[in-house]
Amino acid sequence: MKVRVLVSLKPGVLDPQGRAVHHALEGLGFAGVQDVRIGRTIELDLADDTNDEAIDRMCRQLLANLVIEDYSFERLGDGESA
Amino acid sequence: MKVRVLVSLKPGVLDPQGRAVHHALEGLGFAGVQDVRIGRTIELDLADDTNDEAIDRMCRQLLANLVIEDYSFERLGDGESA
Repeated sequence: MKVRVLVSLKPGVLDPQGRAVHHALEGLGFAGVQDVRIGRTIELDLADDTNDEAIDRMCRQLLANLVIEDYSFERLGDGESA
Repeated sequence: MKVRVLVSLKPGVLDPQGRAVHHALEGLGFAGVQDVRIGRTIELDLADDTNDEAIDRMCRQLLANLVIEDYSFERLGDGESA
């Protein structure tokens, strides 16, 4: 079973990497870019009987830094991938 | 208009960060983890008239390294976020 965890910075937390990308996009001539935020994905291939509660614990204990980050996760259908 | 770009390593490209997370999950006692792959998301807030072709060019020119990475993007509804 594939699970995709999305981890993103909480609103208000400074995102220097996002600012650098924003600046670079403008430098490349792309107009209309209002904001850029960088996050990360963790794609887990888990045993089929893994429940949501276990995935939630993985996020809280390791995958996300809850002080500055939010997370969400979704189960992907068979064969689906980013 | 919000757009989420997902960038992930191509299959077969070594992912040392994913291996470290895999190892750490096992060390924390989570059973049944078969694979872990790390990617990143770029959430763009763009002018409403930005077309897919422009977003595709952003990915190719800056956001993804096409030698080792794949990308995809999706438009998010108003207010939706990771």
